[in-house]
Amino acid sequence: MMTELHRTHEDDAGLYLDDLQIGQRFQSGAYVIEEAQIKAFAAEFDPQPFHLDERAAQASIFQGLAASGWHTAAIAMRLLVDGGLPFAHGIVGLGGEVAWPRPTRPDDILHVESEIVEITPSRSKPHQGIVTVRVTMVNQNEEAVYLLTAKLLVLRRQK
Amino acid sequence: MMTELHRTHEDDAGLYLDDLQIGQRFQSGAYVIEEAQIKAFAAEFDPQPFHLDERAAQASIFQGLAASGWHTAAIAMRLLVDGGLPFAHGIVGLGGEVAWPRPTRPDDILHVESEIVEITPSRSKPHQGIVTVRVTMVNQNEEAVYLLTAKLLVLRRQK
Repeated sequence: MMTELHRTHEDDAGLYLDDLQIGQRFQSGAYVIEEAQIKAFAAEFDPQPFHLDERAAQASIFQGLAASGWHTAAIAMRLLVDGGLPFAHGIVGLGGEVAWPRPTRPDDILHVESEIVEITPSRSKPHQGIVTVRVTMVNQNEEAVYLLTAKLLVLRRQK
Repeated sequence: MMTELHRTHEDDAGLYLDDLQIGQRFQSGAYVIEEAQIKAFAAEFDPQPFHLDERAAQASIFQGLAASGWHTAAIAMRLLVDGGLPFAHGIVGLGGEVAWPRPTRPDDILHVESEIVEITPSRSKPHQGIVTVRVTMVNQNEEAVYLLTAKLLVLRRQK
């Protein structure tokens, strides 16, 4: 399966709408999430006991400290920006669907796998299109912790 | 319209599945997003030029510095946790849909308005249910900058 994956290199100029096809796949590097980061993110954006305190988390539905789902989502974005989805003009999302099938835990080693599932050239703006990408973030046990289906704005190569 | 809104007070114990009804609405407090926060979040999770640098942002599709969509999403969560959605057992999301109809800018004053749109008691777990909430984050001009339709796990009151 690895041969199907597009891997990014330092000298890639990035991909345009013209370069994409349905079924094309990409894989990111790895990101290790640490307990201190989980608590710091939660303190700023999602201050609920199960994201901040081990004992409270043990007694919660998460049965242990879990990262905020929005922290998980933000890490997925970082992995996409850092070469996981090498689009020439960056990653500009209009919206999408998110799901967290299982918790992200301290010391999890995360990466994202992405697949192009739809390409819709704009009728009114010929230099751009909407690309739907299905992103899966998995942990070190290859368990999916976050699913994102995103609609991204992608530009055509300038002629 | 204000009289329809449930406002949270310090002495609220929080709402259970039993307390919710379709059409019920909630409103959060306000959050001011500062330029330094936009850049700090972007540096950590979404290091793209239009979230980090004014000049690059001017030349981009955003035509000015814009917060990462995931920063916007995280702020919405903070507003929900800080009383915007006063559920007794906290806000536990299974997934949902997100959209960013317009950029969030430095010094925007944000708040979220939420409405219960669906309540589905669990068949297999009688003490819980899934509640669908439609959340809109608006800026100081009442323009929607972020839409979230979230499926949340909500517990029944213990009898």
